[in-house]
Amino acid sequence: MSETATRRSEPVSAARRQFDPYTKAVWGLMNHWYPAFFSSELGEDEAKGIKVCGIPVILRRANGEVFALRDQCAHRGVRMSIRPACFTKDTLTCWYHGFTYDLETGKLVTIVAAPDDPIVGDVKLQTFPVREKNGIIYVFVGDDGYEPVPDLAEDLPPKLPADYPHQVPHLLDDDAVVLGIRRTVASNWRLGVENGFDPGHNWLHRDSPIVVALDTALPLGLVPRGPNALTTFEGDGPKGIRNEWDSGDYDVVMSSEKLGLQARGANKIPGLRTSIFLPGVLMVEHWPAYGLAQYEWYVPIDDEHHEYWAVVAKSCPTPAERTDFEYAYDKLWRDAALGAFNDDDLFAREAMENFYAEGGTGWDDEQLCGMDAVIVGWRKIVSRYARGYQTPQAHPTPKNA
Amino acid sequence: MSETATRRSEPVSAARRQFDPYTKAVWGLMNHWYPAFFSSELGEDEAKGIKVCGIPVILRRANGEVFALRDQCAHRGVRMSIRPACFTKDTLTCWYHGFTYDLETGKLVTIVAAPDDPIVGDVKLQTFPVREKNGIIYVFVGDDGYEPVPDLAEDLPPKLPADYPHQVPHLLDDDAVVLGIRRTVASNWRLGVENGFDPGHNWLHRDSPIVVALDTALPLGLVPRGPNALTTFEGDGPKGIRNEWDSGDYDVVMSSEKLGLQARGANKIPGLRTSIFLPGVLMVEHWPAYGLAQYEWYVPIDDEHHEYWAVVAKSCPTPAERTDFEYAYDKLWRDAALGAFNDDDLFAREAMENFYAEGGTGWDDEQLCGMDAVIVGWRKIVSRYARGYQTPQAHPTPKNA
Amino acid sequence: MSETATRRSEPVSAARRQFDPYTKAVWGLMNHWYPAFFSSELGEDEAKGIKVCGIPVILRRANGEVFALRDQCAHRGVRMSIRPACFTKDTLTCWYHGFTYDLETGKLVTIVAAPDDPIVGDVKLQTFPVREKNGIIYVFVGDDGYEPVPDLAEDLPPKLPADYPHQVPHLLDDDAVVLGIRRTVASNWRLGVENGFDPGHNWLHRDSPIVVALDTALPLGLVPRGPNALTTFEGDGPKGIRNEWDSGDYDVVMSSEKLGLQARGANKIPGLRTSIFLPGVLMVEHWPAYGLAQYEWYVPIDDEHHEYWAVVAKSCPTPAERTDFEYAYDKLWRDAALGAFNDDDLFAREAMENFYAEGGTGWDDEQLCGMDAVIVGWRKIVSRYARGYQTPQAHPTPKNA
Repeated sequence: MSETATRRSEPVSAARRQFDPYTKAVWGLMNHWYPAFFSSELGEDEAKGIKVCGIPVILRRANGEVFALRDQCAHRGVRMSIRPACFTKDTLTCWYHGFTYDLETGKLVTIVAAPDDPIVGDVKLQTFPVREKNGIIYVFVGDDGYEPVPDLAEDLPPKLPADYPHQVPHLLDDDAVVLGIRRTVASNWRLGVENGFDPGHNWLHRDSPIVVALDTALPLGLVPRGPNALTTFEGDGPKGIRNEWDSGDYDVVMSSEKLGLQARGANKIPGLRTSIFLPGVLMVEHWPAYGLAQYEWYVPIDDEHHEYWAVVAKSCPTPAERTDFEYAYDKLWRDAALGAFNDDDLFAREAMENFYAEGGTGWDDEQLCGMDAVIVGWRKIVSRYARGYQTPQAHPTPKNA
Repeated sequence: MSETATRRSEPVSAARRQFDPYTKAVWGLMNHWYPAFFSSELGEDEAKGIKVCGIPVILRRANGEVFALRDQCAHRGVRMSIRPACFTKDTLTCWYHGFTYDLETGKLVTIVAAPDDPIVGDVKLQTFPVREKNGIIYVFVGDDGYEPVPDLAEDLPPKLPADYPHQVPHLLDDDAVVLGIRRTVASNWRLGVENGFDPGHNWLHRDSPIVVALDTALPLGLVPRGPNALTTFEGDGPKGIRNEWDSGDYDVVMSSEKLGLQARGANKIPGLRTSIFLPGVLMVEHWPAYGLAQYEWYVPIDDEHHEYWAVVAKSCPTPAERTDFEYAYDKLWRDAALGAFNDDDLFAREAMENFYAEGGTGWDDEQLCGMDAVIVGWRKIVSRYARGYQTPQAHPTPKNA
Repeated sequence: MSETATRRSEPVSAARRQFDPYTKAVWGLMNHWYPAFFSSELGEDEAKGIKVCGIPVILRRANGEVFALRDQCAHRGVRMSIRPACFTKDTLTCWYHGFTYDLETGKLVTIVAAPDDPIVGDVKLQTFPVREKNGIIYVFVGDDGYEPVPDLAEDLPPKLPADYPHQVPHLLDDDAVVLGIRRTVASNWRLGVENGFDPGHNWLHRDSPIVVALDTALPLGLVPRGPNALTTFEGDGPKGIRNEWDSGDYDVVMSSEKLGLQARGANKIPGLRTSIFLPGVLMVEHWPAYGLAQYEWYVPIDDEHHEYWAVVAKSCPTPAERTDFEYAYDKLWRDAALGAFNDDDLFAREAMENFYAEGGTGWDDEQLCGMDAVIVGWRKIVSRYARGYQTPQAHPTPKNA
């Protein structure tokens, strides 16, 4: 399950043809699992709205469980989340005329202003499957009626083999503690993904305070050379690609003779590597420190924005370990790693937006080079395995059932 | 002059076909009277600009009389109202090169920078008929040369029959005192209109301070049941439709068993009913209190904005009654009724905008129900009787004569 | 080299046809020299970006000399000027992956993250010729490979004949001191140009503090009457047109009988006249005072913005004269002439924008008159002599070589 890096010697048109569907995935990948809220953001009886792939979704917690419906009243199209109204544990009521929907089925069960209207029972809102684990609420954003709904684990990086020496926690591990932040970035989601595991952008982070503080050895660049530089995942389970930086098939660039630059930092992190899985989940093993893992999502909001999720996970089998990790997260990792260090990535993604946005020529004019092999690999995998694409739409309001 | 409510049993496509012209009236209805300014906003020799149906209009008061011209100098197209210049009582001069127009005819009578240019006398700006009554300056926004210009009274709600027991003042009554406010709302004008007389949105206002303070009986909803629920006006005079809430053919919804809701308020207002007339004038009889009438306009500015006018009228045959009403208006009705109460309506109109705006699917996907019969009725009446439609335009600059 | 003023008697369609290319020059004239920065804005080793005709350009000073490259990394399209990185005197490095270009040729000479990638040496960025004189850095914004590159002097107003009695300094004179400001204006560049030398807009400035303070005689208008009112420059050298206000063929309008207006000011400035040359350089001789010259540029940024440059030049053969002029500039001319006086022009340009912008009808509906002969003349000259037009583009990213 590995493939050689795509090299510039290959005609661009051929490589490009193989990821053509990817260039059209402007509004995101449909029929996949995405994080919606941190569990702490949605208390009992709260209801809040988000947009994923342009689709407005309202999530409500009742009796501890979280339900998700299309956040657009069937009557006059208003978002119900802007003034949530709930009167029973199993319904959601629109603030405008009182259209009231069953949380589980999405069916219109009554209208406050007209309880016995003939459309009661006839109309329904699309519902979305929800899962909640380790502090994150996930929602499956799919076409109405799409099935079977895959397991959440299919849309997350896979668990490391038990015999692998450099273990990090999986997002669904029972003893994993997962802490993080999310924010909105003004770039297309694909520029977020590609920035995340790009092995050539290390250099951008060279002066980051956390790198300097920990004296981390950060190469100027990483260039794939041999057949084992990249591992692709195309069998059963999650689909993705991994940079095997320790494989010996990656050249580690430590200096630029021409510009008089030298990589800094004495402390090499063993087992550090990055991988990306559909629908755009980054895994950085042993980052920001050995034993931790950083996971990221770039959830499509619309064609020009994504919700950037970044979390750090640690296995904490005991309460004391959990307390220690929470302390380290609060005092160090949140601001220095997820904050300052990743701020450079946000800057880079927004800087690319104009080139790749509608009217720009980025997809045709970009000059990819050898170190971009993993990016080309990712694009091809998406083109082969995405369960669906969201089509461009200014005001996304598909028909209701 | 009444018609049965359109019911859901009627195929949507048939109902929709009957108000198709209405769905295209994005920029407003042409050849109708609209309020432009309160009289108090335009002092002697002042000149100020507005936009109606996308058309820039400048109004100037000279010797007490108000004149209206297209607010776009024929020369280089600038709006004259942004730096008004007037040197005589019968002209308006452009601040840029001194193109000077006759207030009454719109003809170019001189150019400051070139008094004897051959185009003087040749060029003219469109003029608009103006009427002023009871503190409001009205302008007739028409196609150039449209005639005959109808009476202002044709575009206002009609006077109540003399023998009707629950009298309220008409806008043109000599003893009516009319006080109000205006503000710009970020929604299409039609969403403003439809929100205004929608009998199902009562519920939205249930917690409004004025409702609570006066312990007003506000039903949860009003559902038309019989042939007398609605009266349509399609003969001579103003064209419109009225909700006959007291007809006995309207079901008054006082509770929602399913959601455990109960209408509140002990004080029922006799004679309370709403009606709407072309080009979008709402009349609420006996609101915000018995004997008063609230009138509203939703003047199209462009495709995404309307100027929302709300006024309260009272018959005040004596100076003492006028003083009392002005006191009540200043201390109570302005902020509590036109302000706080109607703020909920602004919220609702702007919340619908995305669904119905260009690129949205609201006009096709909305799920109207029985209580929306009056809205469908209004749409059909506009489709039959509008004197013209303004076509979509980004920078509205029709040819000058 | 003169031509009679275009008069209204000429059918508009014929005149319009002669400047049709001009109406299409929405994004500016290509293959011309434009000012980029004041010398004082770009210190040694600094790198800064601008946009001209929609093209991003980065300028860098190294060893005193200024170089200009396309400000868009070939790799992923980011603007390099937003986080400049330079490690040697002859290169410019992109902050993202370290793509490094030769300042002189634009060739990719190394990549920090991948020094021996095969594309090194293959890829290159477009470079732009630069000249610096009397405190202004000029850049030649051309199509890639355009040649021969004309002298800078070809794109500036010509030097006055040596025997002309009312001398003012030329921008390239060795003893000229040139001081000024630049700011961004929200209008198309052509509205800037046309406002600059428009002889009918004098009137707009009548109440400007500097005019009142100096009691300057400012006519209400200037109307061309005879064959010598305008001089056109269509032979060798710069191409342009000049208002010959002192020729006797210009009517000076001193009053408006109809409006009771009288021109004010006792002090007439001898030799005052305006001219405009491709690609849009205004020269006002003996303004803001006798012996000075004001020059202006309206550098196209995109379709809706231009960079407005205004400078005052004075011949200062001795250091004492230079000191005196700098004092007068700092204390008077900058704020009172380039500031307050020209603020009225900015107001006028932005006021025209809507009429002439995309979707507006200005180019068809404007009502030009006799005094606009020089504007029509300018439009025809541009249509005949422009070296190229920039085509409309939302995200200007032409292919790299």
